[in-house]
Amino acid sequence: MTQLEIARAGKISPEMTAVAEFERLEAEEIRAGIAEGVICIPRNIHHDIPRPRGIGKGLSTKVNANIGTSGDFPNVEDELVKLRVAIEAGADAVMDLSTGGDLAAVRRTVIDNCTVPLGTVPIYETAVRAADGGSVVDMSEDDLFRVIERNATDGVDFLTVHCGITREAIARLQECGRVADVVSRGGAFLVCWMLANGKENPLYSRFDDLLDICRAHDVTLSLGDGFRPGCLADATDRAQIQELIILGELVDRARKAGVQSMVEGPGHVPMNQVITNIQIQKTLCKGAPFYVLGPLVTDVAPGYDHITSAIGGAIAAAAGVDFLCYVTPSEHLGLPGPDEVREGVIAARIAAHAGDIAKGVKGAMEWDREMSVARKKLDWEKQLELCIDPIKFKKFRSERATSAEEVCSMCGKYCAMKVVDEYLHKG
Amino acid sequence: MTQLEIARAGKISPEMTAVAEFERLEAEEIRAGIAEGVICIPRNIHHDIPRPRGIGKGLSTKVNANIGTSGDFPNVEDELVKLRVAIEAGADAVMDLSTGGDLAAVRRTVIDNCTVPLGTVPIYETAVRAADGGSVVDMSEDDLFRVIERNATDGVDFLTVHCGITREAIARLQECGRVADVVSRGGAFLVCWMLANGKENPLYSRFDDLLDICRAHDVTLSLGDGFRPGCLADATDRAQIQELIILGELVDRARKAGVQSMVEGPGHVPMNQVITNIQIQKTLCKGAPFYVLGPLVTDVAPGYDHITSAIGGAIAAAAGVDFLCYVTPSEHLGLPGPDEVREGVIAARIAAHAGDIAKGVKGAMEWDREMSVARKKLDWEKQLELCIDPIKFKKFRSERATSAEEVCSMCGKYCAMKVVDEYLHKG
Repeated sequence: MTQLEIARAGKISPEMTAVAEFERLEAEEIRAGIAEGVICIPRNIHHDIPRPRGIGKGLSTKVNANIGTSGDFPNVEDELVKLRVAIEAGADAVMDLSTGGDLAAVRRTVIDNCTVPLGTVPIYETAVRAADGGSVVDMSEDDLFRVIERNATDGVDFLTVHCGITREAIARLQECGRVADVVSRGGAFLVCWMLANGKENPLYSRFDDLLDICRAHDVTLSLGDGFRPGCLADATDRAQIQELIILGELVDRARKAGVQSMVEGPGHVPMNQVITNIQIQKTLCKGAPFYVLGPLVTDVAPGYDHITSAIGGAIAAAAGVDFLCYVTPSEHLGLPGPDEVREGVIAARIAAHAGDIAKGVKGAMEWDREMSVARKKLDWEKQLELCIDPIKFKKFRSERATSAEEVCSMCGKYCAMKVVDEYLHKG
Repeated sequence: MTQLEIARAGKISPEMTAVAEFERLEAEEIRAGIAEGVICIPRNIHHDIPRPRGIGKGLSTKVNANIGTSGDFPNVEDELVKLRVAIEAGADAVMDLSTGGDLAAVRRTVIDNCTVPLGTVPIYETAVRAADGGSVVDMSEDDLFRVIERNATDGVDFLTVHCGITREAIARLQECGRVADVVSRGGAFLVCWMLANGKENPLYSRFDDLLDICRAHDVTLSLGDGFRPGCLADATDRAQIQELIILGELVDRARKAGVQSMVEGPGHVPMNQVITNIQIQKTLCKGAPFYVLGPLVTDVAPGYDHITSAIGGAIAAAAGVDFLCYVTPSEHLGLPGPDEVREGVIAARIAAHAGDIAKGVKGAMEWDREMSVARKKLDWEKQLELCIDPIKFKKFRSERATSAEEVCSMCGKYCAMKVVDEYLHKG
């Protein structure tokens, strides 16, 4: 039985109990949220996850880190380093987006080393195999479903599948026109295949087959947004919202089939459209957990897209987004290395936490209060213990050391925290 | 005559014309905004600024970078490097917050090398001199006004003065209680002096003297928020708002005296209180230009406070803030070096620009559109030319080079931008 089926049967699984403990909530709240389809616990029955995580309504905002080989950097060992860095930095989930090397072998190696929920995008392996043999448009539907099945039996916890790219949606995309067309890699593969072969998207036409596979292994569907805007000018357009409507219909079907699902969202979005995007997803998809990439609030800052994403992600989290996909400083420029993975995870965690404070997630504000009490006391040991990234904390403290241990080198003996104490609290 | 007096006389100064050209607005719009007190052009009559900048309503959001020596790092040469880095990275203004070395000499050296508006905090020099001779609380009122006068005659364009810390405001601070008390360095010096000497704040009691000095040299007042919250738990409390009410009254007096003014704001603020903070400042201070530090939306991320500030700064800018003070990654840990200055300026510029897009500043969105057109064309030269930081752009492109020149190493030949083109636009 899937977590959704268990929840519907009124039972509480060990995973629900673990999630409730982590969130400091009652297990019954988690069960009710899963039964309603507004919370999911991505966990394949074949994958051992020591600390399962819940994603959805009323829970703390979670963070995903993408890793994966590319044609220019196909070495799986490099990806295992990034996997370790991502988990150490606090990623709640990881996606293997490999497109270089032996993809099935890379996936299995990553799963074996992944202690958090793992997601993949099966169309990548299907398309890369087809391209190696000739062209992406030579993919067969059976190839795609074989890869999906293998991902499920290998233990992948959630699958990104671009089921909402229908012929109808493509026609709307062509009609409305865009600056950046399709920027989702999986979306682009499907669009090419559909247009070249004159066929409907098999992830849509054979959605029931997909549900059968997911139910058998309790794989969570992550309904991908193949038409997410790739620049601010394309945001919240008819193509994007058309796909979202279709994804909403598929959420209904997944719920009926007992399959857990979440919905992916944009992308590049101007700040003044971010909240609108969250609200429209929540209505169209009946409160399904929402998983966003960014949103990036400007297009002009390659090298800093962890920051453009942290801005959009924080606003999105505050407005009800449940799951943030990190963006690294390398985005738009190259494949990230371990340093960029760390920066990306921390930036996304900052956004998630800032959003959690704003939306009143249980316990969120207490962390900041504890930190501030330690800061006021000039208790550097305690600050190190509480800060989001002890590695960075130690680096800055040691690089710019002060002659006075109790303060820092910015203000030295003129530290406001310190000077005001003597007078403000006496008498 | 000050810019405010010129504007009130219905005349358009060369500075107003320059600002209008930069903003792509009519000079008359700038003049009217200055006359009303909702726009300022910080420019001391003794300081040559090649490209004056306007700050306020309807203009693009500006960015300030703080530099300055400390007791542990008193070398002015280091600060000149940071000054150059800040201006190259696009800072619209710089503040010299030095507290180490010969402060008057440091200030004059910085002014001589500063091609953008320069701000200072005169209480620092006054307090440091007093502390060197004994204690901060030994400052004299005349010392303070002598330093202010010297700053004005030296050519400082805007002065941060914590005029709103009155005895009444301190009483309210003591009554409401705080986790982090006073975190403004200048505010802390004043509080100590006032409590130790049992006197009113001379920046308040002798505000007319301050206005006389500012009017004589067209120095813009930056009414400092000595009681800005230093942690989320203290945000938007009675002490902060009490001080803001007083600052609003002083804005009225400055306007009457023909002195340009802006108002400084927080600080550490939870995301869900940021917009409230902007709105309350705009009402209490009758639309005076608003200059915020951050706001930092969480306390737990030392080492990443350029990011916590970019989140709050972007939301603030979208809500009407006019001027963002950068925060560097070193904040709360040590004095920043040149690398941190660069990161801080770019993060604040990202926040400002994202906010400008959201609030519809003229020309803001066009930059993103141009960048996205270049990105879609895989035109890397044009992207380099348009991106916010070419140095970072080149670094990432060269470090993670791809075998195929036209794409990047993340997706290589599977670049979505590239693959979809062949099929989407044919027929």
